Amino acid sequence: MPHIRLQGDLPGILGPFAFRPETARPMRELAEILLRGPSTLPSGERELIAAYVSSQNDCYFCQTSHGAAAAHHLGGNEQLVQDVKRDYETAAIPEKLKALLAIAGKVRKGGKNVLPEDIEKARSHGATDLEIHDAVLIAAAFCMYNRYVDGLATWAPQDPEAYREMGRRMAEQGYVRSEEGAKAVSSR
Amino acid sequence: MPHIRLQGDLPGILGPFAFRPETARPMRELAEILLRGPSTLPSGERELIAAYVSSQNDCYFCQTSHGAAAAHHLGGNEQLVQDVKRDYETAAIPEKLKALLAIAGKVRKGGKNVLPEDIEKARSHGATDLEIHDAVLIAAAFCMYNRYVDGLATWAPQDPEAYREMGRRMAEQGYVRSEEGAKAVSSR
Repeated sequence: MPHIRLQGDLPGILGPFAFRPETARPMRELAEILLRGPSTLPSGERELIAAYVSSQNDCYFCQTSHGAAAAHHLGGNEQLVQDVKRDYETAAIPEKLKALLAIAGKVRKGGKNVLPEDIEKARSHGATDLEIHDAVLIAAAFCMYNRYVDGLATWAPQDPEAYREMGRRMAEQGYVRSEEGAKAVSSR
Repeated sequence: MPHIRLQGDLPGILGPFAFRPETARPMRELAEILLRGPSTLPSGERELIAAYVSSQNDCYFCQTSHGAAAAHHLGGNEQLVQDVKRDYETAAIPEKLKALLAIAGKVRKGGKNVLPEDIEKARSHGATDLEIHDAVLIAAAFCMYNRYVDGLATWAPQDPEAYREMGRRMAEQGYVRSEEGAKAVSSR
């Protein structure tokens, strides 16, 4: 049961978003820019970083929904998402993404863990300053979203099909939606 | 030296904010609502939560600037800010704020650390659902800001007077400023 009185049927972060729309707006906008805004990093790779960080933070709702969004961007490749969560070093992903995931994993533990050699490694695989910036901020932002979702003890669906549908909507329609859109997601 | 090429003279988070104004906008707006928006929690108490979490996360720029903003709201009481950072249980602050700081400290370590009894304790001292929500989200958001600032190895001034002036501006003018405002802060 959530720690505060949220609308009971809204899954995960949608409960607190409905409870406090003032803060939901910039939080949704930040996710939209980071995960779906113009970037040289494909949205599938950015969602993989979000899902990986959420998985390391043990946030079931975020890792499953963003994992589903990543899989949708990646042509339905759910196995690849699982591989990245389990051990991205051996997953079938570009070396540049592995280096960005390494940076994201360090940011998750604390910003000071990121060393010049982590940045150099990402650069040696072709990462730009903007890509490095965004990997750092995606990791940092999911340290916020994960704590928000779990710190309020929100409810998370268990049905994998619900997450597939959620991931499809997140990937196709994004994060800045009308309240009606949010309700449509929850009432499936 | 910052990990990516930031405008060299901007302190702390203002460097990455100038580097990526698209993400700066919602991040500034979130801080504005959480720390200065309408609330039954005074801004001084909200800034204390931000400074405490940043201090526990060992983020020098954030704990010092938000500590200065808290002190400014609290009539210049820098000692109280130090007391809260050192041991809020013995600081001269309301019991409700102590209970919210306890929740914030648990969120910082991970959302699942927050237990029903932590919420009950805050409620027993008069905390509302909205105040509990905001304490959780301030803690979660500063887990983002702190990692953003340190994950990019941004530059932080050392002069206490620079932070006093920064804190005054943050408290009085807030977080949603024009780029000119940000530049004015940095060129002091």
